[in-house]
Amino acid sequence: MTLAATAPVHAVAVRHLSAAAATRLLGAWQGAGPAYLALADGLRSAVLAGSLTPLTRLPSERDLAGALGVSRTTTSAAYARLRELGFATSHVGSGTVAVLPRGQARSAAPQPPAGDAPLPDLGDEHAVDMSQATPSATDALHGAYARALEALPAYLSGGGYAHLGIEPLRAAIAARYRARGVPTTTDQILVTTGAQQAIALLAGTFVARGDRVLVESPTYVHAVGALRSAGARVVGVPVGDVEAIGSAVRRTGARLVYLIPDFHNPTGRTMTADERHALGRLTARGVTVVGDETLTDLDLDDVGVPAPFAGDGSDPRLVSVGSASKSFWGGLRVGWIRTTPQLVQRMARTRQQLDVATPVLEQLAVADLLARRDEVLPTRLADLRSRRDLLRDLVLARFPSWEVPDPPGGLCLWVGLGRPAGQALAAAAVSEGLRVAPGPQFTPDGSSVDRLRLTWTRPPEVLADAVDRLGRAWDRVAGR
Amino acid sequence: MTLAATAPVHAVAVRHLSAAAATRLLGAWQGAGPAYLALADGLRSAVLAGSLTPLTRLPSERDLAGALGVSRTTTSAAYARLRELGFATSHVGSGTVAVLPRGQARSAAPQPPAGDAPLPDLGDEHAVDMSQATPSATDALHGAYARALEALPAYLSGGGYAHLGIEPLRAAIAARYRARGVPTTTDQILVTTGAQQAIALLAGTFVARGDRVLVESPTYVHAVGALRSAGARVVGVPVGDVEAIGSAVRRTGARLVYLIPDFHNPTGRTMTADERHALGRLTARGVTVVGDETLTDLDLDDVGVPAPFAGDGSDPRLVSVGSASKSFWGGLRVGWIRTTPQLVQRMARTRQQLDVATPVLEQLAVADLLARRDEVLPTRLADLRSRRDLLRDLVLARFPSWEVPDPPGGLCLWVGLGRPAGQALAAAAVSEGLRVAPGPQFTPDGSSVDRLRLTWTRPPEVLADAVDRLGRAWDRVAGR
Repeated sequence: MTLAATAPVHAVAVRHLSAAAATRLLGAWQGAGPAYLALADGLRSAVLAGSLTPLTRLPSERDLAGALGVSRTTTSAAYARLRELGFATSHVGSGTVAVLPRGQARSAAPQPPAGDAPLPDLGDEHAVDMSQATPSATDALHGAYARALEALPAYLSGGGYAHLGIEPLRAAIAARYRARGVPTTTDQILVTTGAQQAIALLAGTFVARGDRVLVESPTYVHAVGALRSAGARVVGVPVGDVEAIGSAVRRTGARLVYLIPDFHNPTGRTMTADERHALGRLTARGVTVVGDETLTDLDLDDVGVPAPFAGDGSDPRLVSVGSASKSFWGGLRVGWIRTTPQLVQRMARTRQQLDVATPVLEQLAVADLLARRDEVLPTRLADLRSRRDLLRDLVLARFPSWEVPDPPGGLCLWVGLGRPAGQALAAAAVSEGLRVAPGPQFTPDGSSVDRLRLTWTRPPEVLADAVDRLGRAWDRVAGR
Repeated sequence: MTLAATAPVHAVAVRHLSAAAATRLLGAWQGAGPAYLALADGLRSAVLAGSLTPLTRLPSERDLAGALGVSRTTTSAAYARLRELGFATSHVGSGTVAVLPRGQARSAAPQPPAGDAPLPDLGDEHAVDMSQATPSATDALHGAYARALEALPAYLSGGGYAHLGIEPLRAAIAARYRARGVPTTTDQILVTTGAQQAIALLAGTFVARGDRVLVESPTYVHAVGALRSAGARVVGVPVGDVEAIGSAVRRTGARLVYLIPDFHNPTGRTMTADERHALGRLTARGVTVVGDETLTDLDLDDVGVPAPFAGDGSDPRLVSVGSASKSFWGGLRVGWIRTTPQLVQRMARTRQQLDVATPVLEQLAVADLLARRDEVLPTRLADLRSRRDLLRDLVLARFPSWEVPDPPGGLCLWVGLGRPAGQALAAAAVSEGLRVAPGPQFTPDGSSVDRLRLTWTRPPEVLADAVDRLGRAWDRVAGR
């Protein structure tokens, strides 16, 4: 089934976009030309960049006009233009619905990338995807699964539901925290189906409808999604500004703060020891601070993470989330939460309503990989390091005007374009068969319009090709 | 860490019980003796039976008195008695908190059973658990994983996130529906992390806060949990009463109906063809009817399921949920939803916020098992059939006064005790080192107090031992 076939003449909307959400999505949409053309172009770019999903019902012309402070004539003309371009359909009684023009999507149903909003399929088997921070599997994975399979028979006579996680894996995770200097017992570990489930569980546990939750801006987009699903009002604070976090906690009465302390996605930043101490003091105000350590192992320059996020392990309001996805492989769906034994028990009950338990074999494989991490990780890190260096060199050479950071770890380059062209560039890149993620995808308020996230997870030849394509797209956006 | 160690002198409550919920939980608690003793006993039984989780804050004495229509002296005395028995602690300012007495839980942290509310640990390695409907793994599982591991390398160069499920598995599931006479294309299948996630996704998709949702009563308890988590007001209708479902849909304006059409959990009942047709007509009223086919393969007497729940596959409001848990093993966490391609896409986006994707290797193993189901299932079914026959014979012989059904498939015997003693018997069984699930665990309103669910998933010698223990418990409850 192609995406085009799911967008019939009278497309049926599967989601709605409010006028307020449209305003956020559009960001700084106005340009030099007629407003209706700029507005149509902003919406078209959003569809192409994936931030506006096909089969979304757009706000009414009247509502959008009100929210944007333009006349209804402008929104009406903009929707007409969108229809003309094939990016919308209208039908009496069902409003205007965003669609992809026929021919824009030709291949199989798209697999929305993880870590980003769904993007339209590139419709080209030679297309390059630099929007996903998903490395291929470690070479050690196959062996780990093989050994896991040898250990599996001990579990086959049982029902197979390990709601807290199997003992050997919980013990291995606890041992890893202890090795990092954080006293941790096995009963402080809850195994989850990936870090995403850990975040969803914490959101469901700590967030009541309408509660404020603080996140860094930019941040991991699906954490924001999980928090919003739990009813949170998500407030962004600038990355690395612990003082701003503190004052936002006081101002908003936030119940939860979600942070990525090590090799932050997407900026690559690592918190200093002082910042961690300052955050540790915040918990005295009753706020729970969650540190997502999914990227902690990806210390490409061996800078050493200053201190484990959980501090000395004594503060029950400092909660750690971890994952095997980046260290070993995303297709292994194993994550964990380090918290108090009481919360482990409580969340184990909640997780029964989500997916009952994490597969046993996956857990055995991750226990094996954790036991061998010192032999497994160096090869992987060397590989990612050389890809990062290559991508950075290519980007610096091809885009001298861009602001290009030098992250010591992680998977992404968060580049500054020097102008609010992230969405437009991502849209233009689609025409070059390249998928990149524009800045607003990573911010709760759709800011960072001048940013782009590039990942270095693909092989060197693909990275080189991708930067070529990005260069052609940039030339078009920059009007050269 | 033992459970006892998590119940300190001044236990900190991790959940609260409202007075209304306490009333439902207690059911018909009043007996011949003093009210306060009966009330204390009802609460103690609830803790022992697991329907009242340790570390739950009980309602205030005043609130509970109001809800039960008794004096505050009665509730106050009942709480005092509970404390005396070691089943509650009180502390100024933090109310009364249910706990397990020290010594009630001696072994490792309990693994709450799936399919039931969490139960206290039996504290005895020789204890028998008949509360879980979780058979051991099929003998074919190890080979399926081995072949899956051979197929895995094709996936290792990618990021490993298959949000819709991997193509071979989706195709195999679609083929199975076609083989059962339901036209189904691959794009109608969403792979989920078990049927539980499928139910949670459907709840999140169809249920808005406050919506009415209908379920059979009794039914699968974690379906009720997932629906309530999504904000549903869950209304029970008697199993097998399609007319009652129809009138409840009209009366409540329910958005969703959740049913177990084949070898229903816990009653074992299978809907007739006529009932399915009648349900099919209900969808014209705009309600979506979900059929959970987790147990469909467990046709122990080869009676033949009358018609697939999805009817002829043409009604988009008839949604099927399936799973590998009962057919092959619960430790394989793979389930699916059969619905429209549009809803598959929409729910694939939602599930990214739950756990991103289902592990690839698990999916390959299930695809292998589905391809071999005709050689794999007969052995498994023969095994389960002989266990069912044994359990039924043992129960009939030991408890001549009970109502013992003769279910043609599934995993459970839903026995009638002839008096409202389900909770008391389950509590007494704990003292005999036996865990069984009392009727109220399976009903949204805590009814079925005269019922017990026994599962036949354990080996024959364990079943015999379990019925002995149950007999001793029954003798005590029946006062002999």
